[in-house]
Amino acid sequence: MASELLQPLTGFRDFYPEDFARRRYLYDTWRASAEAFGFVEYDGPVLEKMELYRKKSGGELVGQLFDFEDKGGRHVALRPEMTPTLARMVAARERHYKKPVKWFSIAPFFRFERPQKGRLREFNQFNADIFGEAGVGAEIELIALSIEIVRRLGFGPDAVRVRLSSRALWSRFLAASEKSDELLPELLSVIDKLDFDQLSSIPEKTFERLNALGVTADELAAFASAPDLEGTDLQQVVDGLIAAGLGDYLEIDAKIVRGLAYYTGTVFELFDASASMRAIAGGGRYDTLVGLLSDGAVELPALGMAFGDVVLGNLIDETPAASALRDAALRPVCDVFVVVADEARRNEALALTTALRRAGLRINLPLAPAKVGKQFQAAEEQRAPLALVVGTEWPIVKIKTLASRAEQTADASDLLALAETLAKFIP
Amino acid sequence: MASELLQPLTGFRDFYPEDFARRRYLYDTWRASAEAFGFVEYDGPVLEKMELYRKKSGGELVGQLFDFEDKGGRHVALRPEMTPTLARMVAARERHYKKPVKWFSIAPFFRFERPQKGRLREFNQFNADIFGEAGVGAEIELIALSIEIVRRLGFGPDAVRVRLSSRALWSRFLAASEKSDELLPELLSVIDKLDFDQLSSIPEKTFERLNALGVTADELAAFASAPDLEGTDLQQVVDGLIAAGLGDYLEIDAKIVRGLAYYTGTVFELFDASASMRAIAGGGRYDTLVGLLSDGAVELPALGMAFGDVVLGNLIDETPAASALRDAALRPVCDVFVVVADEARRNEALALTTALRRAGLRINLPLAPAKVGKQFQAAEEQRAPLALVVGTEWPIVKIKTLASRAEQTADASDLLALAETLAKFIP
Repeated sequence: MASELLQPLTGFRDFYPEDFARRRYLYDTWRASAEAFGFVEYDGPVLEKMELYRKKSGGELVGQLFDFEDKGGRHVALRPEMTPTLARMVAARERHYKKPVKWFSIAPFFRFERPQKGRLREFNQFNADIFGEAGVGAEIELIALSIEIVRRLGFGPDAVRVRLSSRALWSRFLAASEKSDELLPELLSVIDKLDFDQLSSIPEKTFERLNALGVTADELAAFASAPDLEGTDLQQVVDGLIAAGLGDYLEIDAKIVRGLAYYTGTVFELFDASASMRAIAGGGRYDTLVGLLSDGAVELPALGMAFGDVVLGNLIDETPAASALRDAALRPVCDVFVVVADEARRNEALALTTALRRAGLRINLPLAPAKVGKQFQAAEEQRAPLALVVGTEWPIVKIKTLASRAEQTADASDLLALAETLAKFIP
Repeated sequence: MASELLQPLTGFRDFYPEDFARRRYLYDTWRASAEAFGFVEYDGPVLEKMELYRKKSGGELVGQLFDFEDKGGRHVALRPEMTPTLARMVAARERHYKKPVKWFSIAPFFRFERPQKGRLREFNQFNADIFGEAGVGAEIELIALSIEIVRRLGFGPDAVRVRLSSRALWSRFLAASEKSDELLPELLSVIDKLDFDQLSSIPEKTFERLNALGVTADELAAFASAPDLEGTDLQQVVDGLIAAGLGDYLEIDAKIVRGLAYYTGTVFELFDASASMRAIAGGGRYDTLVGLLSDGAVELPALGMAFGDVVLGNLIDETPAASALRDAALRPVCDVFVVVADEARRNEALALTTALRRAGLRINLPLAPAKVGKQFQAAEEQRAPLALVVGTEWPIVKIKTLASRAEQTADASDLLALAETLAKFIP
């Protein structure tokens, strides 16, 4: 029983330091990429009013919520995604910010689903959104950012594909078949469920829905295989991305429609080249959501995307070059391990450690008396590039480069000079 | 109604970019300080089994939990503090890690309390803990880290005080009065509730508890006013911190006992010098918690502390020098604003932007056609140090330093040279 209590809940993760370092590599890459694109970081609460998720209609996620009544009798839910929180925040202070607003966040989310590969109950997402720009410049910027992220993680166009579509294409399909555009939500919902590789065995229920729409799966497949982009926004998006030098990552794929009901225009997803995993990232334009949440008080065109950490982490793990790139970015625990070779000099070692830490170095030292050999062993286990030996010759100390075993002496009375000497040896 | 839906839950916060920048300054300072001390970062799940908090006895926090039954019928709770999660994680993999284990985390926590100054329902904490070191070296290291954090935030010993105590002092008090040490938990609980500045008006209930213990408030006050540290661990802690050059931050204050039942030895709290606010940080030794959670399977001495972001944020806001230090650390949104002076050159601007972003620069550009004057205005609002003007002279571009209005031309055909030139102008 005790050992069960020591485990996290099913679908939740403990991030031990070695796990955390890999997560942080992802976070750092997300953050640096977003900042290279002039996005600024925000965050919202982990817990929200249940109403926020009901309001957003669609409702796909409501059945997967961790929702409950709090001690004050309010119906609340752990956030399953960032978009409703973000749309709420932007609507509340819309006038405070110059458009376009370009914001990103990195945060945990919660969905009560069956845990499986690529899907957990608590997962982390990078979200980036642009508000207040209706033109295709917003699409180009956001999709370019998604590409920059995978590029920094070591994935070229041979390894990751960006599949682009637009809900407007399916409006054209309806128009061409002389059907009402009001059928679009239902059509998109069916397409989202349809497995285009298995058209010979369509589930009964999907079949009935297609019948009700008056379209066949073959008609959908035929349209999807050769969509006409001429004169569409999507063509301009593609042209812009080609101009930006990113065309080789792109594929048009009309079958991508995204499950969530709030999308209104361009949608896209990133996949590993063999499409053996779930989507790495996805997003799209949602021009009506802010208006919906604010009861029409604020109308703002919007575009957003999210990367999850689970599928992306799996892809890095399973791609040797990307793993190697990541592992090379992980730093050792400290820059300098202070070896206390003479316990009578511990006080001097403490004072020295304070000064070196203040100078910006990352220093470890033994917290209790230990044999010198053991201290060097600890230094090596921590992959410290340097050991600084404080002993009977104080204030003369030894600087030892652990990789080469080279050593030199230095005078610890001049702390500034010592810190500078040490810094020179740290990669 | 809509406008109420646009607000977060009571006691929860939206971190708009300007709020987030201040939060990140805190996070960066916490992280850099912990890393200077050789601590490594970890994280655990936001949601835990309810049992984890019951098990830890004490129970002070159980009444403040956001707890509920999930869709799988499990009684779960949002974490109100990190220590139970951390003790669980360490107990589960104790053998994997060399001692001492020095870990830190920065994460959100949840308590259903009445929101007031310095206290919210969702707050963020920095936690740092040391496992596997029973000696005072651990106390010295952890308290030195707490001091380094406030020092980096701009608070000297005149502004922030570290108050030290030990539960062992009150064991001595009981021994001196020939009372059983089994009374210690009740004694500490009464001391935690007692307002030593208001001994003339002790609440009835506290008075009865003192009577039951057979001690008077005056006896407690007399002992607290002049505790004898001779021969105690606490004296060694103080001596070590003085040797480390940190003595001027310290005060002995036996009245500090910390509310949580799991502490076993040294305890400490950091306060603003006038003690006008709640504690900024607090911690202590908890040598029995890992054993308790693992039903005795793993016994490990442990010491930990936490800083919350609410009180610390208030203190920075209310201290002009600390606010100024923080504000000076906040960066502009981008390094270079690309001005598209000729829309016919937008494709070239896009290609240039891709290249400069890949070179590590933070670049913004207008997402839609706009007048040149408006673009410069956007660049200034974003406090961009540089504007890069792409126009009819392409590939000759103009580099404009926005503060001085100085400008020079450059050839964008040589992208590497251009990126290097730009980098020279960025502070």
